[in-house]
Amino acid sequence: MAEGRLFVTGTGPGKTDYTAPAALEAIKNADFICGYTPYVDAVNEYISPDAEVFTNGMTGETERVEKAVEAAQAGRNVALVCGGDASLYSLASLVYEKTANTDIIEVIPGITAALSASARLGAPVADDLAIISMSDLLTPWEVIKKRIDAVNAGDFVCAVYNPRSRKRTEQIEHALRVFASRGNLACGYVRNSHRYGETMWAGRLSELNTEDLDMSTVLIIGCKKTIIKNGKLVTPRGYTDKYGE
Amino acid sequence: MAEGRLFVTGTGPGKTDYTAPAALEAIKNADFICGYTPYVDAVNEYISPDAEVFTNGMTGETERVEKAVEAAQAGRNVALVCGGDASLYSLASLVYEKTANTDIIEVIPGITAALSASARLGAPVADDLAIISMSDLLTPWEVIKKRIDAVNAGDFVCAVYNPRSRKRTEQIEHALRVFASRGNLACGYVRNSHRYGETMWAGRLSELNTEDLDMSTVLIIGCKKTIIKNGKLVTPRGYTDKYGE
Repeated sequence: MAEGRLFVTGTGPGKTDYTAPAALEAIKNADFICGYTPYVDAVNEYISPDAEVFTNGMTGETERVEKAVEAAQAGRNVALVCGGDASLYSLASLVYEKTANTDIIEVIPGITAALSASARLGAPVADDLAIISMSDLLTPWEVIKKRIDAVNAGDFVCAVYNPRSRKRTEQIEHALRVFASRGNLACGYVRNSHRYGETMWAGRLSELNTEDLDMSTVLIIGCKKTIIKNGKLVTPRGYTDKYGE
Repeated sequence: MAEGRLFVTGTGPGKTDYTAPAALEAIKNADFICGYTPYVDAVNEYISPDAEVFTNGMTGETERVEKAVEAAQAGRNVALVCGGDASLYSLASLVYEKTANTDIIEVIPGITAALSASARLGAPVADDLAIISMSDLLTPWEVIKKRIDAVNAGDFVCAVYNPRSRKRTEQIEHALRVFASRGNLACGYVRNSHRYGETMWAGRLSELNTEDLDMSTVLIIGCKKTIIKNGKLVTPRGYTDKYGE
């Protein structure tokens, strides 16, 4: 039996205004759709009425991927619907792990939350960038701690995903204590960036209330040169230094 | 006189299939379009025939931004067209620096080259990620070196932008020597990712020919756990460790 295609699609921050047309096209043409319920709901209008849809909840990642792989191997045209980018803190790598004939896979990238949040906060992400997650579900805390130290040593602008959950509150406090060694850095967060119910804040590390952070929030910590202008975070790239002003 | 709006639009890797509809909409509605010539050419079909278009070449960034800001301040509806994301190694921060009333600015994020290249190479970018540029035009080499060391210490998957130009060849050699201390890491590059003339390669650090790298190439160096499967780079996220197999 001929194998189908397996499109791993990143749908961006949430509204399809920010989803690549290539991802929407793959979703439209799929006869089997698979994904986390809220991500699939967000692209509902693009799903063919004839498509079969499988959705599940958090921690259902492995089952979701297995369903998608099986369907593609059975000759179906599959779209696995991921939020944000299709790879970054997402499912593309698990799809590669679970698929024998990887030629059937096509990953369609998306706008990741760091860049969505940066756009809302001004332009804190302007050059070299580190992206880290505070979730120790899949990455040991020792590794995360090592990376926090590395980000700090490199004076990277840093986007923090999954900064805090109801049960996991200490990790972000540790990270912020480390980052504070560089000074009272400019920082900001966006909850539900580019989605319904979006809220945001920008200020200095000392003013940040970590109780405002949750799993729908991306926190951006500036580097030493990041400034605040009219309430927006801006990391100058150096054009004005270089070419006068 | 009422001020206009200034949309700083990231158009993604190059083909409009990968450009957010929100960016295409801003371009369509603009009466003044401003950008680097190849980026504006790529969205040509979306530009209104009535719009005024200003394009220039490399090193014209400051002039481009000043034209855009002036036009918006004069009441026009402006789209500044940027490749990739609108902020990351791009112009949004300079726009914020040059604009007095920053309320007129809206940054529309885009798919950045690290994620475009990752999608083509498999799924090397799967969790924590560092993005660095080898260009020392705006960032001092001492800062870049410090960040190379930090990336290495944190065992980050690393996307390297602007890895090598005709005149700048030593920086990437230095970075690769540093990264080799972690072993013969899996790595790969994509030239013209998701664009016409796309080429790519994946293998091990020891097999990488740096003469293949240029300013249109993104190089991705895996972390210690990145594997090569059927010629694709895959960084397992840990689902198979965690939930058995």
